[in-house]
Amino acid sequence: MKLYDYLPSGNGYKVRLLLSWLGEDYDFVALNIHAGDTKTPDFLAKNPAGQIPLLELDDGRVLAESNAIMFYLALGSDYLPTDAFAQGEVLRWMFFEQYKHEPSIAVARFIHNYAYEDRKRELPALMKKGKAALDVMEGHLNNYDFFVGDKLSIADIALYAYTHVGEEGKFDLKSYKAIRAWLNRVKKHPNYIKITDIPK
Amino acid sequence: MKLYDYLPSGNGYKVRLLLSWLGEDYDFVALNIHAGDTKTPDFLAKNPAGQIPLLELDDGRVLAESNAIMFYLALGSDYLPTDAFAQGEVLRWMFFEQYKHEPSIAVARFIHNYAYEDRKRELPALMKKGKAALDVMEGHLNNYDFFVGDKLSIADIALYAYTHVGEEGKFDLKSYKAIRAWLNRVKKHPNYIKITDIPK
Repeated sequence: MKLYDYLPSGNGYKVRLLLSWLGEDYDFVALNIHAGDTKTPDFLAKNPAGQIPLLELDDGRVLAESNAIMFYLALGSDYLPTDAFAQGEVLRWMFFEQYKHEPSIAVARFIHNYAYEDRKRELPALMKKGKAALDVMEGHLNNYDFFVGDKLSIADIALYAYTHVGEEGKFDLKSYKAIRAWLNRVKKHPNYIKITDIPK
Repeated sequence: MKLYDYLPSGNGYKVRLLLSWLGEDYDFVALNIHAGDTKTPDFLAKNPAGQIPLLELDDGRVLAESNAIMFYLALGSDYLPTDAFAQGEVLRWMFFEQYKHEPSIAVARFIHNYAYEDRKRELPALMKKGKAALDVMEGHLNNYDFFVGDKLSIADIALYAYTHVGEEGKFDLKSYKAIRAWLNRVKKHPNYIKITDIPK
């Protein structure tokens, strides 16, 4: 299979990290989102939402949305529980991530990393929303080691991806003790890779 | 089971519509989101994200996030395919809905319906983002009757909920012929209920 991706993307990194944990082989197709690579007619025919990551199977079928791709890849593995309610809880955290966490924490990082001066006025609202998301995570992690079933799952990967680079968006994680301890637990996986590691 | 909800909420309506299709009995607990009912210590202990809908099972376990609740309730039913890739596609559309569709189309409706004057300057950006989401849907529905596997699924409910009241957010659906035909197909389900129907 092929993964269309952009190395600094936390959404892409989710899929790369899971594929590494699963020990799966795939082709990494690097696109430059700043150069319009995801807005070409060819790419839009694959994903009309014009976004990476995009998974392409060997038979040509494609799947978009990082958390949907993770769910598909993790089915039947250790990283997705089989119990119906536990699957619901995994999805609960992944929808929380895409609605409350990514749109604030990832967007603040994007504005800082690429110095979008005209978007800096968005930052106060993004900081407020992002801190509220981190507070919800901290509250959960004060009582549990992981997000679902007290073991690693794709819910942890979904929330790890942009939290672990939160400081690039000027989110100070110092006061989030439980989050910092959890970040370290996720990193301990023997197949851990960094967001900057180019897949072979 | 109990559903904590707010009748005008499209996110809540998703769960109510699915429960009606499934013929499931439940208690409807009406909360007033404008009066702070979702920010009380009691409610935040159930859902720290402070949002409806929230499903509470008879054993006291709770599940948040409309699309996660739908996935849990639909497992094993006609409204969620059993094939792994098809489940991935259902989730792809549900994540698209929560990332691109709801934050524009539902938010514009909210600003108009509750006359949040100080938020009206958000509307031009919301209209642009919402139209882009509708364009993606229209493109898909030009080729298919439903979002996944050419039959009704929770992906259709997820996208139906705020699209069918899009005009309350001043989205003109006249030029979206395929979307309008699909809205009518969804409405034809024998257990269809309206967003304004108070569950018994």
